[in-house]
Amino acid sequence: MKLNGNYDKVKDSYLFVEIAKRVAAYTANNPQAKIIRMGIGDVTRPLAPVVVEAGLKAMAEMGHAETFRGYSPDSQGYEFLRDRISEYYARMGVKVASHEVHVSDGAKSDCGNIVDMFDDGNVVLVPDPVYPVYVDSNIMSGRKIVYCDGTEENNFAPLPDEKISCDIIYLCSPNNPTGAAFNKTQLAAWVEYARKQGAVIIYDAAYEAFVTDPDVPRSIFATPGARECAVELCYFSKTAGFTGVRCGYTVVPDELCGGKFAKMWARRQSTKFNGTSYIQQRMAEAAYSEEGIKQNMENIAAYRKNAQLISAALDEMGIYHTGGKNSPYIWLKCGMDSWKFFDKLLFDANVVGTPGSGFGKNGEGFFRLTAFNTYENTAEALSRIKKIL
Amino acid sequence: MKLNGNYDKVKDSYLFVEIAKRVAAYTANNPQAKIIRMGIGDVTRPLAPVVVEAGLKAMAEMGHAETFRGYSPDSQGYEFLRDRISEYYARMGVKVASHEVHVSDGAKSDCGNIVDMFDDGNVVLVPDPVYPVYVDSNIMSGRKIVYCDGTEENNFAPLPDEKISCDIIYLCSPNNPTGAAFNKTQLAAWVEYARKQGAVIIYDAAYEAFVTDPDVPRSIFATPGARECAVELCYFSKTAGFTGVRCGYTVVPDELCGGKFAKMWARRQSTKFNGTSYIQQRMAEAAYSEEGIKQNMENIAAYRKNAQLISAALDEMGIYHTGGKNSPYIWLKCGMDSWKFFDKLLFDANVVGTPGSGFGKNGEGFFRLTAFNTYENTAEALSRIKKIL
Repeated sequence: MKLNGNYDKVKDSYLFVEIAKRVAAYTANNPQAKIIRMGIGDVTRPLAPVVVEAGLKAMAEMGHAETFRGYSPDSQGYEFLRDRISEYYARMGVKVASHEVHVSDGAKSDCGNIVDMFDDGNVVLVPDPVYPVYVDSNIMSGRKIVYCDGTEENNFAPLPDEKISCDIIYLCSPNNPTGAAFNKTQLAAWVEYARKQGAVIIYDAAYEAFVTDPDVPRSIFATPGARECAVELCYFSKTAGFTGVRCGYTVVPDELCGGKFAKMWARRQSTKFNGTSYIQQRMAEAAYSEEGIKQNMENIAAYRKNAQLISAALDEMGIYHTGGKNSPYIWLKCGMDSWKFFDKLLFDANVVGTPGSGFGKNGEGFFRLTAFNTYENTAEALSRIKKIL
Repeated sequence: MKLNGNYDKVKDSYLFVEIAKRVAAYTANNPQAKIIRMGIGDVTRPLAPVVVEAGLKAMAEMGHAETFRGYSPDSQGYEFLRDRISEYYARMGVKVASHEVHVSDGAKSDCGNIVDMFDDGNVVLVPDPVYPVYVDSNIMSGRKIVYCDGTEENNFAPLPDEKISCDIIYLCSPNNPTGAAFNKTQLAAWVEYARKQGAVIIYDAAYEAFVTDPDVPRSIFATPGARECAVELCYFSKTAGFTGVRCGYTVVPDELCGGKFAKMWARRQSTKFNGTSYIQQRMAEAAYSEEGIKQNMENIAAYRKNAQLISAALDEMGIYHTGGKNSPYIWLKCGMDSWKFFDKLLFDANVVGTPGSGFGKNGEGFFRLTAFNTYENTAEALSRIKKIL
């Protein structure tokens, strides 16, 4: 028996595992330290009341024979949820049919599993810096990866380079980790490039709910021609605080590969996945109700306020940064080795962030802060940071 | 861009999708028919009261900032659940450490994703008949598959053939679809064979809770030497009625590939999976409590009673069958084409079962019934079947 040798090519320790280790080591030696976490992109505000209510109702249903639910009718998700998601797109002026929505247990699963659709010989284009899962999941399948550089010069919103050939393109907008978001013109350029190349765009829209700028599309399918060349992954993790709940979805348009892509994805999911829990799907349905969206938008507004606070503090200190506007992430130039800055912030300010170098070579010298903590903690962290910088 | 060509080699329609289609077509034309479903292996009895209670409590926690939980500490699952599972094994006299347990969202996910661990050049040995996921998930990766024949002669519990070389071995005991279960001697033969071949056994223990025969091991790790050559997949789907809840686990022993397998699986899961919902993990924890096990065993006893009823009825009719003893499945010789028998049962008795041919070539001429319906429906179905056979 021979193990998958590609695993030897991915780095041993996943970024956030390494951060957790360093923080654990520090707190073991400094148990009195009041650590403020602005590292991992986890939410802190509780679920919206209507979501909890729907969850309690679904849970109770599972305890009675008349209302008990076993396997979903299929692995794609209940119609009651897919219909709500389709309507959500309609309200932003984007046409996504209910049957094009595939419900899942969340971000990483779909993002990691979608690579099954492609031949291992395909060349993958990823922006650098980038969410490590895009790169790692393709290295695990032995695919060649090429990069397009996000830099201070392009404000970390790199545009396609016609000289680079590729088959699969990852885009994340608003971006993790940089918080930069593509505007309509920039996304149109990517769609045009993908179509010329015959490439598929894997579009990560995890942070779409944070977009306020009307010139920034919240879905790739707002861009003409995208239905022929893109899939879109989206999650309730950030929109509805579902990081500990686990639910999300992928949109596969009918037009992609003449319908073959949708058929293959359905085949994969019905073979290697058995659907999302009925309970989670009812919770997600409530999150997409009128009242649910209203309640979740209050949570998002609170995170936005934190993001603005961070951005303003950095402006005051004269520190270059992107994000914080259409995004819960702030990407700042730290002017030194990223891990050194991480240690400095941890040791001297007891603030945990994420070293930019963990997201790729262009992340070196940069650092990510997130807006997911409380307002009080965010303000306190900024005051500590101001003191040490 | 080139799609994964291996998908062209898997059959278009998944077995249970085809069944659902035929049933839907029949009921559309015969809306008055009272269909009894003994096809798909879905449970019908509601969740145990302690499980619902734990779920309601966890759900309520998610609605308050003080008790809200985001991402799991890692993708492997909370310690509170892994410890309970480790204790569960200890009570059956099997040593499985808490850190060897990897919690997931269920059966198909782990079973479909575990193939990522292996080189695509490995040869896969699967029993025939078999749960289609073992075969399909490997065809999707382009692996060569060899079969070992389950037949009437070996009562569908085939033993290893030293002449066959392989790298990966799938075993499911008690078996889906045949209900046949390996005894200690038979499992020891498989472990010895795997070790000689340098192969890894992927052991599907989904139905272990149905075992009553003390000579039938409920875990592969009850067999000496198995920790060096096997992983075990188990799910709460059948044990605790979690088909609509989604939770399960995989045990990767430290000894497998000198620890490398566990490291690779953890790396895969932390990259392509983001952990099981906190809510589900609390529900599973309750299912493994003393009271939870007592309540779930009442459900299993009810299904067992149905299985015995089916088995006795087939004995009475003189129909050869396996299973029904340590298993919720009954595998019967139908004496005709499996799909023809499916249609006969559907049209003439309004009973839905599963055609044996859907599980492999040796399944032709056989048929699977499940014990997951109510006692009343099971009795009614048997009385209808007796009339038409």
